[in-house]
Amino acid sequence: MRIGEYLIKAIEETGTKHVFGIQGDYVLNFYSQLCNSRLKVINTCTEQGAGFAADAYARMRGFGVLCVTYGVGGLSVANSTAQAYAERSPVLVISGAPGVSERQNNPLLHHRISSFQAQFNIFREMTCAQAVLEDPDTAGIEIARVIKTIQETKRPGYIELPRDMVDKDTYEQVLAPQEPVSCDQEIIDQACRAALEMISKAKNPVIIAGVEVHRFGLQDFLLKFIEHLKIPFVTGVLGKSVITENHPQFLGVYAGAMSPDSVRLAVERSDCIIAIGPMLTDLATGMFTHHVRPAQTILVSPENLLIGSHSYPGVSMEKFLELMILLPQPKLNFQPQDNTQVPSFIPQSGKKICVERLIACINTFIEDNTVVIADVGDALFASLDLRVHGDTDYFSPAYYASLGFAVPASIGVGFAASEKRALVLTGDGSFQMSAMELSTIARYGLNPVVIVFNNSGYGTFRPMLDGSFNDIQPWEYADIAKIIGKGKGYTVLEEEELYAALEAARDNKISPTVIDVRLDKYDCSLRMRQLTDNLKKRVK
Amino acid sequence: MRIGEYLIKAIEETGTKHVFGIQGDYVLNFYSQLCNSRLKVINTCTEQGAGFAADAYARMRGFGVLCVTYGVGGLSVANSTAQAYAERSPVLVISGAPGVSERQNNPLLHHRISSFQAQFNIFREMTCAQAVLEDPDTAGIEIARVIKTIQETKRPGYIELPRDMVDKDTYEQVLAPQEPVSCDQEIIDQACRAALEMISKAKNPVIIAGVEVHRFGLQDFLLKFIEHLKIPFVTGVLGKSVITENHPQFLGVYAGAMSPDSVRLAVERSDCIIAIGPMLTDLATGMFTHHVRPAQTILVSPENLLIGSHSYPGVSMEKFLELMILLPQPKLNFQPQDNTQVPSFIPQSGKKICVERLIACINTFIEDNTVVIADVGDALFASLDLRVHGDTDYFSPAYYASLGFAVPASIGVGFAASEKRALVLTGDGSFQMSAMELSTIARYGLNPVVIVFNNSGYGTFRPMLDGSFNDIQPWEYADIAKIIGKGKGYTVLEEEELYAALEAARDNKISPTVIDVRLDKYDCSLRMRQLTDNLKKRVK
Repeated sequence: MRIGEYLIKAIEETGTKHVFGIQGDYVLNFYSQLCNSRLKVINTCTEQGAGFAADAYARMRGFGVLCVTYGVGGLSVANSTAQAYAERSPVLVISGAPGVSERQNNPLLHHRISSFQAQFNIFREMTCAQAVLEDPDTAGIEIARVIKTIQETKRPGYIELPRDMVDKDTYEQVLAPQEPVSCDQEIIDQACRAALEMISKAKNPVIIAGVEVHRFGLQDFLLKFIEHLKIPFVTGVLGKSVITENHPQFLGVYAGAMSPDSVRLAVERSDCIIAIGPMLTDLATGMFTHHVRPAQTILVSPENLLIGSHSYPGVSMEKFLELMILLPQPKLNFQPQDNTQVPSFIPQSGKKICVERLIACINTFIEDNTVVIADVGDALFASLDLRVHGDTDYFSPAYYASLGFAVPASIGVGFAASEKRALVLTGDGSFQMSAMELSTIARYGLNPVVIVFNNSGYGTFRPMLDGSFNDIQPWEYADIAKIIGKGKGYTVLEEEELYAALEAARDNKISPTVIDVRLDKYDCSLRMRQLTDNLKKRVK
Repeated sequence: MRIGEYLIKAIEETGTKHVFGIQGDYVLNFYSQLCNSRLKVINTCTEQGAGFAADAYARMRGFGVLCVTYGVGGLSVANSTAQAYAERSPVLVISGAPGVSERQNNPLLHHRISSFQAQFNIFREMTCAQAVLEDPDTAGIEIARVIKTIQETKRPGYIELPRDMVDKDTYEQVLAPQEPVSCDQEIIDQACRAALEMISKAKNPVIIAGVEVHRFGLQDFLLKFIEHLKIPFVTGVLGKSVITENHPQFLGVYAGAMSPDSVRLAVERSDCIIAIGPMLTDLATGMFTHHVRPAQTILVSPENLLIGSHSYPGVSMEKFLELMILLPQPKLNFQPQDNTQVPSFIPQSGKKICVERLIACINTFIEDNTVVIADVGDALFASLDLRVHGDTDYFSPAYYASLGFAVPASIGVGFAASEKRALVLTGDGSFQMSAMELSTIARYGLNPVVIVFNNSGYGTFRPMLDGSFNDIQPWEYADIAKIIGKGKGYTVLEEEELYAALEAARDNKISPTVIDVRLDKYDCSLRMRQLTDNLKKRVK
């Protein structure tokens, strides 16, 4: 089988149906093979847009593929790949490359960085596995190895495909599935006893449902665990909605000092925190303002199980959840609550919109099939208070924190799950970086609703240090649809206008809708104020 | 002196007056120092836009500075930095970074890639010198070393500035100027004799004036050399206009099979080619279709002097040009020509515009202060036939070949030389990647004329392999000014409309003008046809 065809076959076997990217002459004949396959190629305006789309697709479906040309394409997805690495999104990056035969005598070929090795070296810093398919004899096994490592680690991988190798024959390879990490039964029993003891003694235990539960596909296990023990749970910034927020045991999103008091106290006054796959990043902990006592914590991560100060190597997240379901239920006073309702929003006539009321209004428009994607900034911080219905139907780059993710991510969501509908929350600074991808959305007939939190610049930085560098040129965001030939746009200043625009957006199911919400320059959510107070201390 | 202030002082000493970038919390207090200095900070919409602007600024002024935040900022300028490396543009990349004290215990700080070392490792692949200013005692000398290496090699350099180091005191450092490479007088004499012999025997010698003459600031030397020997000269794709194209000895732009016949024959039938600082890239040689006999070639590069097959180590480009001026003039039949005129263009009523006539028309609008910036694609290939007046008043990324360079590059030109005016030639695919930077242009009151070669997609690839991946969503490019609040726009289909739009653009000196030239999907310049015929052979 030819190398290119085998690569396509291996991608198809992951369940992937779409490939995102922009072509170029070094990858042109592989594109030709892609177009003749069952995979659908989705072309974005920029390579970074394709990178974010593939990342979102991977978060939704467990695998995503990005295909670009050498140098100019590869380096243009460095940032999106780094984000996928940091936040554990399993994206395969395929880069075309000059042919092996062309590289003889080290010629100055276009798109070359410094040496022909440079791009490989760069991607080694941000992928879990790398291969240059320069030898037909090993290409098959290299493809299998990279894809398997992506699936096991939930991190991006890198395959470089010299253009004269695409049609060369290689051997098909199937790697043996990874042996589950064997674990000593004695250790398992010890872990069980220790967990049981800590949980059964606890008066007010709480579960932190972390993002890695989603990345490793363990939501069903976690849900069983939560419902069996009847312990209330919170989620984190990255893992918001990993279990549906309609669940009667859900308390809210915990993020250190950035949390609502009720959630913060439930966690920080708990005498037993069971944290499953959280990523303890600075933003997730409200800039390390979280107050959690290790002695009263069970920390379950993909790499380790810690109960108090005791480590139980080899007990995986899955194994731990399985075991916990067998434990007797602790006796608790926790009263389940009705989380299915959100407060109604009645727009006030003539009232200028503010962030707090914007979120309250959006909340009433979230439906069962809504996927919320938030860009970094107050779009993220404020949106932590939205009530998302489905499992993992909220995401944002809340750790690596690259601006301009949300609009192109909605392309990935559109193709990953056509029954869903993306609700994009973006700042005006972020939107200026990513607005061109509305064109891709229009081209492929997707229908996200894009809400621009327009506060005239980089609002997150203003409380830390203000200056003209936080300002941006004002745009008529609502008119972008006129440029790209498709879509609706609304500029709203008051609550009634906002409500009407959201109603119109809900009904426009055939094209993108942009709602430019004109906010006061210094308005922000309570959560952002709490965060920036802490960030400010760290700037110097 | 504080590290941040010393960095600013060192930048000022290069003659640089502007810094391009986008801030972020890791670089915020350095931004504060920048804003209090004489340097002017220019904020773009995307970091890559800032990267291209700094590159163009560096090409114009000999030094450019880019300042971004960690991770999301750093990796977003990887592609533009690689281009600056490949094409020898001396750009200093400054990246903010987490404080040294914050890195203890290896925390998951936002914008972190994999390790805290990753960004440094990545930039090592595309810069000539690197430093992390983590030690106040050495920060001063590290700054001096990186800047000196940039100036000597004409390649980008990288400085990473942890945010808790900005206000720490360091020592000011002045590095000794580089000793000129000493050269044995015997070798110089030998080189002189060999060059004299080859040139004096020649019946039809020709000079190739290459891009590295410009990068090392030797245009005046080269001009003296050319005028002293009265030998005709050509330029290359990267070095187009390194000497004014109005010069009576100028023959045209040479690029292998991509050259006009008159230029190609002048070079390939020459019995003595004197190539000064050319970069023999694939695009510059028409995909290595150039026919040049080494035995009849004098090849002068920054690193070496080759006369025939004989190498003369240590004879620099500057030294060689100095020596040549002392040689007796060869007797030649070459007749200087009047290159000051271009054929007039009379628009034909009702005639649809084509690439060939578009270039002919633009040619009549080029003025003495026009700087032409061409994006890769037919905007580049076709524009090789434009007659540029000034020295190095044409540039394009004709080697590394990243799309979307030209619009943000015009920002760099605007600040590098306020008496000049940028004429941007871009394809529609390129423009969709870079159009947001018109907003930056509007914000700062710059006035480039942007001509969109709108052929409904990635036209360069269509002759190689066509498919839907070469198509893009059609936009109303002329209406972008309405979104960004400033500027003029024209959509032109016919010659008379084009002419009128160029007249209007010439007169609009206060804001950007976009001219959307609707071309046939398969129309292209003769040069592009010649190139793609050769590229096509290499795709597989």
